[in-house]
Amino acid sequence: MQQDVSAVLDRIDSDLSASLDRLCELLRIPSISTDPAHAPDVDRAADWLVRELSGLGLAARKDATDGHPMVVAEGGAEGSAHLLFYAHYDVQPVDPLDLWDRPPFDPEIQDTPKGRVIRARGASDDKGQMMTFIEACRAWISVHGELPVKLTFCLEGEEECGSPSLVPYLKANRDALKADLALICDTGLFDARTPAITTMLRGLLGEEIIIHGPDKDLHSGMFGGAAINPARVLARILADLHDDQGRVMLPGFYDGVPELSDDLRAQWEGLGFDADGFLGSVGLSRPAGEVGRSALEMIWSRPTCEINGMISGYTGAGFKTVLPAQASAKLSFRLVGSQDPHKLRESLRAFVRERLPEDCRAEFIEHGASPASVMETGHPAFEAARGALSQEWPNPAAFVGSGGSIPIAGYFKSILGMDSMLIGFAKDDDQIHSPNEKYDLDSFHRGIRSWARIIDAVARS
Amino acid sequence: MQQDVSAVLDRIDSDLSASLDRLCELLRIPSISTDPAHAPDVDRAADWLVRELSGLGLAARKDATDGHPMVVAEGGAEGSAHLLFYAHYDVQPVDPLDLWDRPPFDPEIQDTPKGRVIRARGASDDKGQMMTFIEACRAWISVHGELPVKLTFCLEGEEECGSPSLVPYLKANRDALKADLALICDTGLFDARTPAITTMLRGLLGEEIIIHGPDKDLHSGMFGGAAINPARVLARILADLHDDQGRVMLPGFYDGVPELSDDLRAQWEGLGFDADGFLGSVGLSRPAGEVGRSALEMIWSRPTCEINGMISGYTGAGFKTVLPAQASAKLSFRLVGSQDPHKLRESLRAFVRERLPEDCRAEFIEHGASPASVMETGHPAFEAARGALSQEWPNPAAFVGSGGSIPIAGYFKSILGMDSMLIGFAKDDDQIHSPNEKYDLDSFHRGIRSWARIIDAVARS
Repeated sequence: MQQDVSAVLDRIDSDLSASLDRLCELLRIPSISTDPAHAPDVDRAADWLVRELSGLGLAARKDATDGHPMVVAEGGAEGSAHLLFYAHYDVQPVDPLDLWDRPPFDPEIQDTPKGRVIRARGASDDKGQMMTFIEACRAWISVHGELPVKLTFCLEGEEECGSPSLVPYLKANRDALKADLALICDTGLFDARTPAITTMLRGLLGEEIIIHGPDKDLHSGMFGGAAINPARVLARILADLHDDQGRVMLPGFYDGVPELSDDLRAQWEGLGFDADGFLGSVGLSRPAGEVGRSALEMIWSRPTCEINGMISGYTGAGFKTVLPAQASAKLSFRLVGSQDPHKLRESLRAFVRERLPEDCRAEFIEHGASPASVMETGHPAFEAARGALSQEWPNPAAFVGSGGSIPIAGYFKSILGMDSMLIGFAKDDDQIHSPNEKYDLDSFHRGIRSWARIIDAVARS
Repeated sequence: MQQDVSAVLDRIDSDLSASLDRLCELLRIPSISTDPAHAPDVDRAADWLVRELSGLGLAARKDATDGHPMVVAEGGAEGSAHLLFYAHYDVQPVDPLDLWDRPPFDPEIQDTPKGRVIRARGASDDKGQMMTFIEACRAWISVHGELPVKLTFCLEGEEECGSPSLVPYLKANRDALKADLALICDTGLFDARTPAITTMLRGLLGEEIIIHGPDKDLHSGMFGGAAINPARVLARILADLHDDQGRVMLPGFYDGVPELSDDLRAQWEGLGFDADGFLGSVGLSRPAGEVGRSALEMIWSRPTCEINGMISGYTGAGFKTVLPAQASAKLSFRLVGSQDPHKLRESLRAFVRERLPEDCRAEFIEHGASPASVMETGHPAFEAARGALSQEWPNPAAFVGSGGSIPIAGYFKSILGMDSMLIGFAKDDDQIHSPNEKYDLDSFHRGIRSWARIIDAVARS
């Protein structure tokens, strides 16, 4: 039975205020997955989702894992196309808290020079994006009684802490989760007028390095000069990771890094990416990566090595003449093409060990490893979704790359044998992972409408 | 009138338990001067000292400064030698707190394989050392009714946070504080059997560097590769500060650094310093400073550049793929000979600025600057004190150098025109500035007796 999408779109418009209220309810739950102190909040967010999805008539449940729970729900029309919808309900930490203009878990709709926004941690990444899909389903069900597709939800609570339980969970639930296609809503618009389907994702390797020197913190007057300083050792190692051309110096790092095809290069140049505006929006003026590469290459198709955090010694107010016993850094590498994260982890560890002076030792902590993904855009749903998005937004939809890492797409392919379609409505200035995260009301509203259209188009395709 | 020291020594022995009780009372006050939250505690420690010194019949008072107060007291025999006693009643912060075996401000007398110790923050640096002198005065006064010398106390509450009020205070109170000689009790024994008078002190330059990049923390997926990472910029600058021979690379750094005289080198070699034991006590095996220098040179007569703290990005539990907006390091330089701290601060700032890429800027915060000091050992009190110390301890007293910085000695010379004699009873393993700080009961007991003998010897000299 062909159902009418226009009534669903009308319902979305008239229900927008209630949709926002529901989103704000979820945003008030501080589900920071990386911080053990917030584990009860993550659980509370899972319960909230189970209630919401059950309220839509879906068979919803919370599946325990070794970490935070997975929220799973099933429903929709049997015998039609089967979609798996993936999103995550956990959020990033909020520090530095003093840079927030308001409490991060007290959401507010704000008028800004660029339009109305929803301000809160998770507003964009990923609660707001997730709720665009859930609200689209709500509208479908309330207008037509049932979705036009068979649908399985898989909502994760560990995306922001490296997804330790995800792979075991997928492996243990292959049959229940396998669908025709996965929808993943963790990506962005190309710009405010141009929706995007992301077809290239960088991989991610995370590693923490702790350099140990003296067996305790020392007085720098008594021992300074004679005792090795692990902060100095770490600084030297970190400095050695790049050469003066911005290239990463780990042996074997560029194995499997492809050059852009002429076709793709031409397509990306056609997008008219505003590198000056992109960098200018965060107070910068020059692409800082490999010399001779464009900013868009640097973020979509080139690998990186970044220091995400480092700490040693006394870092409070004032001064303390301490010689620290240890120094540590959290590093991440964005990977492209067929770079092998496990080989690179070993290469990094060897690189560190080679640079250790006598009297220092290195400790390593893994924080995830996933290769890059390239999507199969030949699946008919891609053209259906591109058409649906192009109807909703001012400009036609584009196939784009993404600097971020969404390892789930690779797992869906390797574990469930299923392609993924990545669509989202975030904007570059959403400040995800940063203070004052926001989601545009326009992203939320048009996002819900976009999913209603996509569900319709995929059901017909 | 010549007074008898032996009755004073007997009184010290019989009063030891009460002396310890008084020390523990002071140790219970968490007078951390660098942390504004502890300002009321610093003030409470000052009040405690005023009460104690008044109780000895001295004219004691608390003098306000722009920071923490100065405790001043006067007394003793007019017309005899006039000594100024300096100590500090503030203490270092206690982090990392989880490395302490017990609460740092709940002192305990403990039996250890090396003897009995007083365990608490400040037990050695400098409350325990300060109380050796106060208790010696108490015994003198209780036995003889009056000290055999004229004495002024000057007790500081800002030594551990760079002494911002000290110089203005000394300048404003020149006449009240000027004495024949200053006694400073912030130094150590040469070893458990050998007392020491410190005649060379390194200077100290403290500087904090903050590298600013993007105007907010960024998502390393969205911006990684294209946006400059200030942690990487800082690591490069810190790595450049030393060459592979352990030499400091700041232009002009070694101007005014003298080579040891043959005499002094021979004297220090005669001390039989156990470099292996010194480094082994903190889990190290090799002197880490300039290639070709001995460990004793590295800590007594060579300048250093140390990272005391650094921080950037996310440093909590787990992982966060953030590109930090800033990165900072606290650096200190130990200075010798006639190295000019102000010139070196400018050299450091130029060194940093030269290495800043476009899109980064550096912010600098001063944390003190004092040149090295070399004492005038020709003053007769030095020989008197050396004799007194040699009577109390198993081995004769030695004239030694010190890696630590006690800028007050330089200020007494330059502002009050007064020489200083540095005597203390701390041990290398006291873990000052570190978790589980302690002071040996033997240091405390013999320290009190040593000061009683020194007061006697100086009065007779």
